[in-house]
Amino acid sequence: MSKTNSGRYFEDFTIGHVIRHATPRTVTQGDVSLYTALYGSRFAVQSSDVFAQDIGYERAPVDDLLVFHIVFGKTVPDISLNAVANLGYAGCRFLAPVFPGDTLVASSEVIGLKENSNGKTGVVYVRSTGFNQEDVCVLDYVRWVMVRKKDPAIATGHDAVPSLPAALAPDSLGDAVPILDVSAFDTDLSGSVHMWDDYQIGEKIDHADGMTVEDAEHQMATRLYQNTAKVHFNHFIESKGRFGCRLIYGGHVMSLARALSFNGLGNAFHIAAINGGRHVAPLFAGDTVFAWSEVINKAELPGREDVGALRVRLFATKDCPCAAFPTKTEAGYDPAVILDMDLWVLLPRSSSA
Amino acid sequence: MSKTNSGRYFEDFTIGHVIRHATPRTVTQGDVSLYTALYGSRFAVQSSDVFAQDIGYERAPVDDLLVFHIVFGKTVPDISLNAVANLGYAGCRFLAPVFPGDTLVASSEVIGLKENSNGKTGVVYVRSTGFNQEDVCVLDYVRWVMVRKKDPAIATGHDAVPSLPAALAPDSLGDAVPILDVSAFDTDLSGSVHMWDDYQIGEKIDHADGMTVEDAEHQMATRLYQNTAKVHFNHFIESKGRFGCRLIYGGHVMSLARALSFNGLGNAFHIAAINGGRHVAPLFAGDTVFAWSEVINKAELPGREDVGALRVRLFATKDCPCAAFPTKTEAGYDPAVILDMDLWVLLPRSSSA
Amino acid sequence: MSKTNSGRYFEDFTIGHVIRHATPRTVTQGDVSLYTALYGSRFAVQSSDVFAQDIGYERAPVDDLLVFHIVFGKTVPDISLNAVANLGYAGCRFLAPVFPGDTLVASSEVIGLKENSNGKTGVVYVRSTGFNQEDVCVLDYVRWVMVRKKDPAIATGHDAVPSLPAALAPDSLGDAVPILDVSAFDTDLSGSVHMWDDYQIGEKIDHADGMTVEDAEHQMATRLYQNTAKVHFNHFIESKGRFGCRLIYGGHVMSLARALSFNGLGNAFHIAAINGGRHVAPLFAGDTVFAWSEVINKAELPGREDVGALRVRLFATKDCPCAAFPTKTEAGYDPAVILDMDLWVLLPRSSSA
Repeated sequence: MSKTNSGRYFEDFTIGHVIRHATPRTVTQGDVSLYTALYGSRFAVQSSDVFAQDIGYERAPVDDLLVFHIVFGKTVPDISLNAVANLGYAGCRFLAPVFPGDTLVASSEVIGLKENSNGKTGVVYVRSTGFNQEDVCVLDYVRWVMVRKKDPAIATGHDAVPSLPAALAPDSLGDAVPILDVSAFDTDLSGSVHMWDDYQIGEKIDHADGMTVEDAEHQMATRLYQNTAKVHFNHFIESKGRFGCRLIYGGHVMSLARALSFNGLGNAFHIAAINGGRHVAPLFAGDTVFAWSEVINKAELPGREDVGALRVRLFATKDCPCAAFPTKTEAGYDPAVILDMDLWVLLPRSSSA
Repeated sequence: MSKTNSGRYFEDFTIGHVIRHATPRTVTQGDVSLYTALYGSRFAVQSSDVFAQDIGYERAPVDDLLVFHIVFGKTVPDISLNAVANLGYAGCRFLAPVFPGDTLVASSEVIGLKENSNGKTGVVYVRSTGFNQEDVCVLDYVRWVMVRKKDPAIATGHDAVPSLPAALAPDSLGDAVPILDVSAFDTDLSGSVHMWDDYQIGEKIDHADGMTVEDAEHQMATRLYQNTAKVHFNHFIESKGRFGCRLIYGGHVMSLARALSFNGLGNAFHIAAINGGRHVAPLFAGDTVFAWSEVINKAELPGREDVGALRVRLFATKDCPCAAFPTKTEAGYDPAVILDMDLWVLLPRSSSA
Repeated sequence: MSKTNSGRYFEDFTIGHVIRHATPRTVTQGDVSLYTALYGSRFAVQSSDVFAQDIGYERAPVDDLLVFHIVFGKTVPDISLNAVANLGYAGCRFLAPVFPGDTLVASSEVIGLKENSNGKTGVVYVRSTGFNQEDVCVLDYVRWVMVRKKDPAIATGHDAVPSLPAALAPDSLGDAVPILDVSAFDTDLSGSVHMWDDYQIGEKIDHADGMTVEDAEHQMATRLYQNTAKVHFNHFIESKGRFGCRLIYGGHVMSLARALSFNGLGNAFHIAAINGGRHVAPLFAGDTVFAWSEVINKAELPGREDVGALRVRLFATKDCPCAAFPTKTEAGYDPAVILDMDLWVLLPRSSSA
């Protein structure tokens, strides 16, 4: 029997099966620095221990998406090594802050299996969960991927699609944020005067800046997350493949868009939930990523007056500035759109008199 | 009103105005490692806690230019987002050591404004200052940039150019260096036997090595500094612009030249001051940087016998080895020169009998 | 006299001479993160403090090859700045674990000198040793390099080749590994169920994955190791040289191959020794590295029942997947092979009833 992991095929998954993933990972300040170098994020809470402590954190928490990518990366060898496509995310909640020094492990439960009509592939639904060294759940999300079948000739009969929430409810948000002293939230240092109260439903924000991606950058990012998906790293194979070049990890686009969103959402210091996410089109080295956001909902958090939630649809495009807010219409997506993400982000509320 | 920061124009500046910059930043060992990976600096004091402690530091301080870049980066969104050109630096002093774990904030005071005769731009002079978490000033420098006007048709009348020192006086140097035990300065470990006493005014030093820069490298560096200047990151826009490609952050060249200068100035472990600096020509990915130095002055530090100061003119070139010491003559700069920096560096003095 | 280090020539070496190298280096979590980002290594022991502590380490040790590269890098300015070729390694043992916070220094003793018959070059043999801040030896290896002579016309007469072991003896292995509690070695988290007992002599393992290398990556790696060998960094010079482009540090290939070897050797958590290593052919940016291993010996460690040693021949290739196990035959190396390394790696032994 080969000792090399060649990954699970569709037939290898069983509903209810829980897979504990390798490799446990102690997150460090080195990871945080690399994350900054890769995306240039400027949210004060994640950048400064002093700022974080002043408002009520133990110290600066690790960027939410860095936690997401590390947990996601662990699932790849077990879930998506033979994936044809990463179809979507839903119901992703950030449940506890992660600090440098914490050690993350991850597991996934198979919650749905649906064979495709062509017999060649099927969709695998997993709920993946990240835990810290004290067994506290820090992250929980559903992902579905299209996975190759070993044998197209033999039907599995799998036809179980789980029901997934369109969006997290406001009362499920905010567990990763301590009660904040908003009077200590210094808007000179945070880089924005705009609090939760200042945003309106329907408001569109062009994040203005563009960021070109290099192969060395996305490879370093994806390896930092110990994500082993082959398409990101192997030019020799990919040069002969579908796109003729390496494909950039979709999470890299998420982090770029999030970092760009600082310009216009500078006080949206925390992603409380990813309601859904779709990688509309692939990104390749040399492409330039732009982003814009639309505020699609606002919510108070039950029992909390320190922070409020904005539901934001965050779009990323390639080689297309977003002043015209390229989006999805009945005719489909604008061809420039590469990412369509539905987030709940938290902002401090104006401290009224 | 747009929530996107589109930066200040020349008309938005007022002399005497103090701007507190976002984003506070805890400097970490991760930043130090990235800095090493980006430039390959080999000064023992910044590389080894043990070496630093043996001579009298609390532990290894952060590289001076990393501190400079982090403070500089914070000023960009407020000062130079609409800059046409970064014209120069002066009077830059390093006033206290920075260690991993320190949190830096920055502010800038507008100290001069001079409209250009074409009416389209003006020069903004700011004194920028970096502080640590104990409100100790760690860095202080003047920078002037050419900034676009909103309305070329309306003259502002601004004509205030501050007087700037040609060089810092020796008695203003060395605050960032504790009194050292020079007898513990191990020249095997430092990589050079040449102490302050061994350098002569007029001496020219070819730093010999060359370093080619990649887009991924300067982008990672510039994002590490949370510097958001658009020209460094956006190939989509810059490919249609003045140079046809992304422009490398001038500070990246400063750090490359400084790291190369180890070969010949291995004991010049600290930049005490940047008397002035000029980015003579732009650098682009694929270019190879070389450097050489001329010792233009020497000074004892009043009251100190442990270290002495060399005033060094540090030149960087692109695609031109420096054995012939390319420089500025009456006819102007040698076309290979890209950086002309005037520094005070500190070296240990020979421990005489 | 020039203050620039132009490196030693063959005539500058004397048998018995011990050279203490610059620059001492405190290894940090930042270095560990960069190492992960550069190679994507997934061994649980080095990735997780919790996993490491559970089995008996103080905390997660630094990757063995990161230690090797840092020590090696220090030797370059003194040993191989004028090297024509890095010919080989032998007898390399890892003698104590290195943890973030440790400070490494290195020295080399000249143990052999043999002038080549052409009179232009000679082979220098050195035993290089790395120590931590408590003067504990962490690494010890022999390297030989071909170095230019200053004067081809004058023969040195040097003809002393040291005798070198073909492989380290099993009783010399394992000093860097504490006695482990193998019952705590969680094979879900380690990513492999295959213990020492499960491998057979003669077994061949295709590590399956490929990794394309970018210039920015190998340059950042090599600078992280403060390795100053000119051929890795200077496109201006190398574009006119032997290969027409920068040459990738051979150690970068070693680390890539080691990281790829996780897929098939996931529990081989420690390199106890490098019996020998040969860089068969150069690697350049854009090439894709693959790897495979052959188990060539197995050994118990005297007095230890927790771990066993596999002697593994680890091959790396470029632009050639390794399913067919490209190797060396009587006709010479398969043209795809770039690295042929002979290692002792340690794995936990099955905890029998």
